[in-house]
Amino acid sequence: MSKVNLAVIYYSATGTNHQLAKWAEEAGKNSGAGEVRFRKIKETAPKEAIAQNKDWEKHVEAAKDVTEVSLDDLEWADAIIFSIPTRYGNLPSQVQQFIDTTGGLWSKGKLANKIACGMTSASNPHGGQETTLMSLYKTMIHWGAIIVAPGYTDPSLFESGGNPYGLSVTAGKDKLDDKIKNAVSHQVKRMVEIAGKLNA
Amino acid sequence: MSKVNLAVIYYSATGTNHQLAKWAEEAGKNSGAGEVRFRKIKETAPKEAIAQNKDWEKHVEAAKDVTEVSLDDLEWADAIIFSIPTRYGNLPSQVQQFIDTTGGLWSKGKLANKIACGMTSASNPHGGQETTLMSLYKTMIHWGAIIVAPGYTDPSLFESGGNPYGLSVTAGKDKLDDKIKNAVSHQVKRMVEIAGKLNA
Amino acid sequence: MSKVNLAVIYYSATGTNHQLAKWAEEAGKNSGAGEVRFRKIKETAPKEAIAQNKDWEKHVEAAKDVTEVSLDDLEWADAIIFSIPTRYGNLPSQVQQFIDTTGGLWSKGKLANKIACGMTSASNPHGGQETTLMSLYKTMIHWGAIIVAPGYTDPSLFESGGNPYGLSVTAGKDKLDDKIKNAVSHQVKRMVEIAGKLNA
Amino acid sequence: MSKVNLAVIYYSATGTNHQLAKWAEEAGKNSGAGEVRFRKIKETAPKEAIAQNKDWEKHVEAAKDVTEVSLDDLEWADAIIFSIPTRYGNLPSQVQQFIDTTGGLWSKGKLANKIACGMTSASNPHGGQETTLMSLYKTMIHWGAIIVAPGYTDPSLFESGGNPYGLSVTAGKDKLDDKIKNAVSHQVKRMVEIAGKLNA
Repeated sequence: MSKVNLAVIYYSATGTNHQLAKWAEEAGKNSGAGEVRFRKIKETAPKEAIAQNKDWEKHVEAAKDVTEVSLDDLEWADAIIFSIPTRYGNLPSQVQQFIDTTGGLWSKGKLANKIACGMTSASNPHGGQETTLMSLYKTMIHWGAIIVAPGYTDPSLFESGGNPYGLSVTAGKDKLDDKIKNAVSHQVKRMVEIAGKLNA
Repeated sequence: MSKVNLAVIYYSATGTNHQLAKWAEEAGKNSGAGEVRFRKIKETAPKEAIAQNKDWEKHVEAAKDVTEVSLDDLEWADAIIFSIPTRYGNLPSQVQQFIDTTGGLWSKGKLANKIACGMTSASNPHGGQETTLMSLYKTMIHWGAIIVAPGYTDPSLFESGGNPYGLSVTAGKDKLDDKIKNAVSHQVKRMVEIAGKLNA
Repeated sequence: MSKVNLAVIYYSATGTNHQLAKWAEEAGKNSGAGEVRFRKIKETAPKEAIAQNKDWEKHVEAAKDVTEVSLDDLEWADAIIFSIPTRYGNLPSQVQQFIDTTGGLWSKGKLANKIACGMTSASNPHGGQETTLMSLYKTMIHWGAIIVAPGYTDPSLFESGGNPYGLSVTAGKDKLDDKIKNAVSHQVKRMVEIAGKLNA
Repeated sequence: MSKVNLAVIYYSATGTNHQLAKWAEEAGKNSGAGEVRFRKIKETAPKEAIAQNKDWEKHVEAAKDVTEVSLDDLEWADAIIFSIPTRYGNLPSQVQQFIDTTGGLWSKGKLANKIACGMTSASNPHGGQETTLMSLYKTMIHWGAIIVAPGYTDPSLFESGGNPYGLSVTAGKDKLDDKIKNAVSHQVKRMVEIAGKLNA
C-alpha cells in the first residue's frame, strides 16, 4: 500500500464534530496513512452571535490554535473526511463558504479523484443525520470525488446507529463513547486503505 | 373547514407500517376529516420468499382482508399519507410498482394538488429513515402534490425521534408507544386541517 | 381568496436569478396577491473575489438599491419563493448564511406553515438544477413549510425544461424568454392561490 | 492494472437505456477490463400494459435474448454500471424489485466494496435526470459500494449535458450521437481504471 495524504476537515460550533474529527485524525495516524492534516473550517459567524451561546464561545476559544483549512490542503489530499453538523438538513454556511472558494481548483481538475466521506451531527435523532451527508456527497460528486461511505461494512456500524452514509450522532444526547469511536476508526481506515490502493 | 377525503396507504411486510397506518386512520377519523380510506399496497413478493420469514407470513395472513389500494383511491383522495418501510434508502418495489401504474392519471392531471406526506421505518436508527421520505417526496412533487411534512410543528415531534420529514421508527427496536402515536396523530391532523382549508 | 404576503427572495451573482425573481415579483403583483416584497440575499463574498468577475461586479452595482432580506420578511410572509443558483448541487453560502440566522424564529415556530418553493440555475443543463431545489426543500421541511413545487401542473412546465421541482435555467445558455417567464408566472400564481386559500 | 469483472446492468422499456448500456459494454471491452457481462433487468409489467405501447412491445421483443441479471452477477462483479430510466425521480419498479432480492447477499457482505455508477433517462430535460441517480447512489451506499460518478472529469461531460452524477439523456429528444457515446465511454473507462487499481 502506498502512502496517503489524509485531510481531516471539520467545522464545529460546540465541540461534537471536533471530537469526531480528533478520532478520525487518530485513526488516520494509526492506519499508517502517511501524513494526516487536521484542519478546522473558518468560523464566520459574528462575535455577538457566538457570545450568546456559552458552549460555542468556549469551543471557539479551545480550538483557537487549530490550523484553518486552506485550498492547498484540498489539493494536497488524496483522501478527505469531513465532520460537520447539520443546518436544517444541509451544510453549515461556514462549510459552504469554504466550498464556494474552490471554483479555481475545480476548473483545473485539482479536486477530481479524491477519496471522500463525511460524518455529521444533529440535535435530533432523525433531524438531518442522513440527509446532510447526502448533500455533502452531491458536492463531492460535482468535484469528481470517489465516495467511500461506510455502508454496513463492519459490525461497529450497527452499534453506532447504523448510518451507512457516514458516522453520525445526536449532539448532546448520544454518548461519545467507544462505540462511536470504533465506527469512526473503521470509516477512516477503510477509506485510507482504498486510497492507498488507488495511489499505488 | 370543508370535508376531506383522506387515503391512508401503506405497505407492510411484518406489521410496523400497518400499525402506523392504523394510527393514521384513527387520527383521520377523529379529526372529522370526512371520509377515510385505509388501503394496503399489494404484496408482489413470491410466496416462497414470504414463507422464509415467519413474521412476514403471519402479517400477510393477518392483513388479508384489508382492501388493496386502487388508482381510484388516488383520484378520490384530497390528502394522502403513505406509510412504508425503507429498502436501502428508497421505496420498496411493491410501492414503486403501484406508483408505476399511475401514468394515466398523472397525464390527465388527476394527481395534481393532492396533499401528501409519509411515514417510514428502517432496521437501523439512521438506516434510511430520512432519505426514504425524501425519495417519496420527489415522486410526490412529480405528481404535483403539495408536501405537508410535519417539520417541528409540535412537541410530539421531538419526543418521537425528531424526524421533520415524517414520523419514522426503528423497526423491532423502537417501542410503538403513545409517543409515536401522538406524533402520527399530529402529522395527520395537521395535514387534514390544511387539506380542509384548500378544499373550502 | 384572502390576501397573501408574498416574499420573493433571491441571490444572484451575475443576474440570472435576479431576472427570474423580477418575473416572480411581477407574477405575484398580477395575481392580486396582496403585498409583494422583493428581497435580495446579502452578498458576503469579499470585494476582491467579486472584482475578478466583471459580470458579477456589474450585477452587484446594478442591484445595489434592492432591499436586503431580513428575518422580519420571513416572519411576515405567508408564501416565499426563492431564486438561487446552484453551488455544486447545494445552496450558495450567501443563502446558507441567511438560513443559518433563522434559529430564533424557528424555535418560536415562526417559520412553520409558510408556503414555499424555489427556482434555480446552473452552468450545465444537468449540473444541479434538480438537486439544488431538493436541498432547498429539505430545509423548508425542517422549517415546517408547505412545499408547493410546480410538478407538471401546466403546459408551460413542459416548454421550459420540465423541471417539476421548480423553474430552472442553464445560466448563460438558456434564453430567458417568454417560455421561461410563463413558467415562473404559473409557479408563482399557483403558490399564491394555494396560500390564499390557506389564509382564508 | 489487474483484471476487472464489469457488469453492465440495465432496464429499458423502449430502448434508450439499452442503447446506453450497449455503449457501456463496448467501452468496457475496449478498456481491456477483463470480462464484461451485459445484463437486462427482468421485465415484470403485465403483457397488457406492454401491449398498449408499441415501442415498448417492440423493444421487449428485440431484447428477448439478452440474459437476465442474477444475484450471481452482482457477487461476481468488481464494478457495476446501471442504466435505468426515471420513474418520477426514483427507480423503476423492475429495478427496485431486483434490488429487493439482494438482502441475502447484503447480509453476508457480498455487495460491499463494489465500484458503482449509473446512467439514466427521463422524458423531460429536468424531469429526474439528476435525482434518479442520487436515489441509486443512496442504495449503492447502503450496499457499501464505492461511488465513482463522473463529476466533470472529462470534456465529454460538458458536451453531453454536464451531468456529474452520471450520463443522462432526454428520451426521444436528445440525439443519441457520438457526444453521448463519448461520455458513456469516459464514465466506464474511468470506473474500470479505478476498479483495476483497487483489485491489484
